[in-house]
Amino acid sequence: MNMRAPRGTQDILPGISEKWQYVEQQLIDLSRRYNYKEIRTPIFEHTELFQRGVGDSTDIVQKEMYTFTDRGDRSITLRPEGTASVVRAFVQNKLYGLANQPTKLFYIGPMFRYERPQQGRMRQFVQFGVEALGSNDPAVDAEVMALAINAYQELGLTSLKLVLNSLGDQASREAHKSALVSHFEPHRDELCSDCQLRLEQNPLRVLDCKKDKDHSAMATAPSILEYLNDESKAYFESVQNHLQAMNIDYVIDAKLVRGLDYYNHTAFEIMSDAEGFGAITTLSGGGRYNGLVEDIGGPETSGIGFAMSLERLLMALEAEGVELPVEDSLDCYIVAMGEEAEQEAVRLTQLLRSNGIQTDKDYLQKKMKGQFKSADRLKAKYVIVLGERELEQNAVTVKNMTSGEQTELPLGEITGYLEQELAGGE
Amino acid sequence: MNMRAPRGTQDILPGISEKWQYVEQQLIDLSRRYNYKEIRTPIFEHTELFQRGVGDSTDIVQKEMYTFTDRGDRSITLRPEGTASVVRAFVQNKLYGLANQPTKLFYIGPMFRYERPQQGRMRQFVQFGVEALGSNDPAVDAEVMALAINAYQELGLTSLKLVLNSLGDQASREAHKSALVSHFEPHRDELCSDCQLRLEQNPLRVLDCKKDKDHSAMATAPSILEYLNDESKAYFESVQNHLQAMNIDYVIDAKLVRGLDYYNHTAFEIMSDAEGFGAITTLSGGGRYNGLVEDIGGPETSGIGFAMSLERLLMALEAEGVELPVEDSLDCYIVAMGEEAEQEAVRLTQLLRSNGIQTDKDYLQKKMKGQFKSADRLKAKYVIVLGERELEQNAVTVKNMTSGEQTELPLGEITGYLEQELAGGE
Repeated sequence: MNMRAPRGTQDILPGISEKWQYVEQQLIDLSRRYNYKEIRTPIFEHTELFQRGVGDSTDIVQKEMYTFTDRGDRSITLRPEGTASVVRAFVQNKLYGLANQPTKLFYIGPMFRYERPQQGRMRQFVQFGVEALGSNDPAVDAEVMALAINAYQELGLTSLKLVLNSLGDQASREAHKSALVSHFEPHRDELCSDCQLRLEQNPLRVLDCKKDKDHSAMATAPSILEYLNDESKAYFESVQNHLQAMNIDYVIDAKLVRGLDYYNHTAFEIMSDAEGFGAITTLSGGGRYNGLVEDIGGPETSGIGFAMSLERLLMALEAEGVELPVEDSLDCYIVAMGEEAEQEAVRLTQLLRSNGIQTDKDYLQKKMKGQFKSADRLKAKYVIVLGERELEQNAVTVKNMTSGEQTELPLGEITGYLEQELAGGE
Repeated sequence: MNMRAPRGTQDILPGISEKWQYVEQQLIDLSRRYNYKEIRTPIFEHTELFQRGVGDSTDIVQKEMYTFTDRGDRSITLRPEGTASVVRAFVQNKLYGLANQPTKLFYIGPMFRYERPQQGRMRQFVQFGVEALGSNDPAVDAEVMALAINAYQELGLTSLKLVLNSLGDQASREAHKSALVSHFEPHRDELCSDCQLRLEQNPLRVLDCKKDKDHSAMATAPSILEYLNDESKAYFESVQNHLQAMNIDYVIDAKLVRGLDYYNHTAFEIMSDAEGFGAITTLSGGGRYNGLVEDIGGPETSGIGFAMSLERLLMALEAEGVELPVEDSLDCYIVAMGEEAEQEAVRLTQLLRSNGIQTDKDYLQKKMKGQFKSADRLKAKYVIVLGERELEQNAVTVKNMTSGEQTELPLGEITGYLEQELAGGE
């Protein structure tokens, strides 16, 4: 009987889940300030969406998708990334027809790729991403990059590098592609089998190959930046001017091409150079994908976006020793002795919780000492004691667990007292 | 080319997604006050977990699971509900060994059932649920029900009914089962084929049948409450005493059995009787499942939990006309004229956003009038105007869009001014 989580997936348990909540809440707030609105698309889509929208020649589509046939005989795939689904939703729901353009969207949720699991690479992982659809203003490119880098900076990361490139427009890319093919053709037999295929399907991705990266022809390969036409050059300059206006540092890397087929103009990655972060240094990436909306059946629409893995974000926070401000204490624990007090504890617990006070009690019939021990372990700020004497007098004893101070109060005053104490202590 | 979301799934778009965010945030806060901590389990599990943990004889396992074989030849199933996964995680991560017991967990996330899509029943839907593992104190049963009903009440619902039953312990259930079989046996041929099977596998579920619900033998079927032994009776009474202490109304329905195999003692549902809510009136349900942890390979551990569909919660809010306090305005919109002003607008937008102010600008090269129109449509509270004159004087004009009042300020003072204005307006 296999009763473990499937390989490459994980349980996020209390103690860690609060960090996820905090990070996600920060990302939602960041998106709000940039005026990006949340979209939620289904966990699975028709397989052809990803074949079309991610690209048939990509590793994702060729090797890594969770594809299956549903009970209605449809080919369904767990989403391997977010952009194709968002663009599908943009087209299906005709968001391009709304008055406010560009349409600025963010998403956060699980994605699925059947890869060899390793640190920072799970088969189920969570991505946060944004997409801005309907504008080809270079200021949007800069805005998306600003949001991406700010996401990390606001959480406290400092060892960050924004790496930028331009892949140019269609014409620039074609010119560069021809140059690449001419350059690598004499070395075809020395390249890996994947690259030999890439040379026909998408020569740009040869530059991205991990196997051939030390081949002598790599260093001398023609740079896309030499093949940008005037329009593409002007676009790239404008993006950079905006980044400088926003005081955002970046470096240009003409070899940055990204793994997906659909990018043009701006392509970027955010890397961490924190010590102890290991081999994986890319935290997130994105780029412009004019043409994708049409590929998915919509009207001609520009688009740009980026996506980050939350697993890697949390790894980077750990590598840099950033402590997230996550609470693990309890406002109030109620200690009760005797059956009557127990019933009163049930009533009081409910009352306090309804008044916004985080409260817990014993559910294991523990003795008084054991209950106090539980209160300690749960890091209770206040303990309320309900014994026979207290019940008789319609009163409670409250102990401030930080100062050790004890107060006796009429039962009816406890809510107000705790509200005030807890507000004052913050 | 099929470029629509799969049947039975939906996109949650801006305008609606804010309601989801709000509701989820409320549920997270509610769980925090009751001291339930979040757990996140994978979207899919090994199929046998659900066969074992949900029950082979259930409709879910027999007809409704999204099951497929992954690239490693494992049988994998998209989770149809949350309890089996949480219990699996509890066992695998040995949470039963932690010092603080019971282990009180909540989850929120998508679940998957291949059913005929209809209003309030999607193939992908979102469940919020809690599980309390490791205590058989009737006060925990009451706590879980209190949390469930409070979730709805705090969001503003009033047409609510908590329906309660006891399914007794093993011995009580066996006695009742025999009585049920004897009662229905003479009518076996008149029952639907599903019920004929249920009579052998799990006679209790005959009472839950939608096809046979008007059969004359239904009304006269023996009630579980007549078969509760003393221990089960005492347990049920204690649960009710606690509910009364908490001032929570409930009704007892001896026919409430729930669709899952694993319940014992407490079973409950929360129903809505709001007008215009249509045929579906069950908002959520839960119960006690002592024995399930052992079935999944863990030590003997009591458990109780409940789950609610967020889709139905949102439908109920709509049916009762509850307005959620969701903001759809924008703090600030920057109107800029001319290339130099545009660059300054990029800088200022970034500055304001970094200071916590929700800000947007034009990305479609619109004229001034068009930019003001965008600001209106986005419900901007303040508009900053950056023109040639302002740039020359290193100043901005700020317009309060509610009062119409205009103020001219040095550029360096705008952040502080808006912070103050926005804080004052809340």
